[in-house]
Amino acid sequence: MEKYPSRLLENAVNEFSKLPGIGRKSALRLVLYLLRREKDEVLAFGQSLIQLRNDIKHCKMCHNISDTEICQICSNPARNNSVICVVENIRDVMLIENTHQYNGLYHVLGGIISPMDGIGPSDLEINSLVERTGNNEVVEIILALPTTMEGDTTNFYIFRKLKEKPVRVTTLARGLAVGDDLEYTDEITLGRSLVNRVLYESSLGK
Amino acid sequence: MEKYPSRLLENAVNEFSKLPGIGRKSALRLVLYLLRREKDEVLAFGQSLIQLRNDIKHCKMCHNISDTEICQICSNPARNNSVICVVENIRDVMLIENTHQYNGLYHVLGGIISPMDGIGPSDLEINSLVERTGNNEVVEIILALPTTMEGDTTNFYIFRKLKEKPVRVTTLARGLAVGDDLEYTDEITLGRSLVNRVLYESSLGK
Repeated sequence: MEKYPSRLLENAVNEFSKLPGIGRKSALRLVLYLLRREKDEVLAFGQSLIQLRNDIKHCKMCHNISDTEICQICSNPARNNSVICVVENIRDVMLIENTHQYNGLYHVLGGIISPMDGIGPSDLEINSLVERTGNNEVVEIILALPTTMEGDTTNFYIFRKLKEKPVRVTTLARGLAVGDDLEYTDEITLGRSLVNRVLYESSLGK
Repeated sequence: MEKYPSRLLENAVNEFSKLPGIGRKSALRLVLYLLRREKDEVLAFGQSLIQLRNDIKHCKMCHNISDTEICQICSNPARNNSVICVVENIRDVMLIENTHQYNGLYHVLGGIISPMDGIGPSDLEINSLVERTGNNEVVEIILALPTTMEGDTTNFYIFRKLKEKPVRVTTLARGLAVGDDLEYTDEITLGRSLVNRVLYESSLGK
């Protein structure tokens, strides 16, 4: 165990090393870096995190994070509100927006079904997706979840839930390598997989 | 340029990506992680950084960081106050403490002479080192700076400054590979280099 010359320093190192991918050595390096910055800068950093966590809202429609009750995408009249793209989290919304290939709405599940991590359908925003889909305007649901076992399970669960609804359920073209995460896919591949989306049934290989 | 769904999110990502070694993608990942934590946890994180920067003190003797006016090492009567180990920064104090091979005091310069970065002797705690050395109790100054050109320059500058003083100036045994930083040296090598320290003159290879 390291010995720190100051309790304040130790606290800050402890807090930093709770972050994913940051060990105690990196944490110490970051803390020492902050110690050399101006007080104002560190204050701004600390406050930006506290504010973020306290004041951030989730869009009541799509559950993306937002500074307003209804997010900029859902409230944009230029977007096509007959298509909803279902994603795992807000990072995926940003990734798809960056492809400039999609003009519909989103639905952020807040995770995917993963029994190993104790995440079941009721922990996700699936019911609210089914409700939104009841709306006559919606004609297509695009499932844009990771091509992992958990993603496939979630796809299938949602597909079953939407069976009675008069919508087409599609999924991203398998330009994505199986087992890959959306974050590490280049924008061209991701964009193409959106354009070439296929009916969920045909993606099962039946 | 990425488009963020929220100004608060963008702020936090901007702040994180100012840290060394953290790009915008890593920053976003860290921010999304924090968004999933409890409010209390994020509050504690933010406050620990602000407190650190606002309340931290530097020991008036050795300039190590400290929660008190005089640090725990300088005020510890069990430490040998006839030896002062000169280091670049507080990280190096922690590294040397972890070797459990040293029982003397420290002096933290706050950097090393580096004309390329605009750091000259007057930016460092060298004068206060010379003052401390005037004290009759001090019999040895150990120079424990990096074995880089900047470290060598600083060593030589301090050596010259202390020439009139009745102290032995030693330097860490060159068990350290030339060009290496203290942080990436294993504790055994670092400990041995402390035990085998040699007179500064002989380290010049004369």
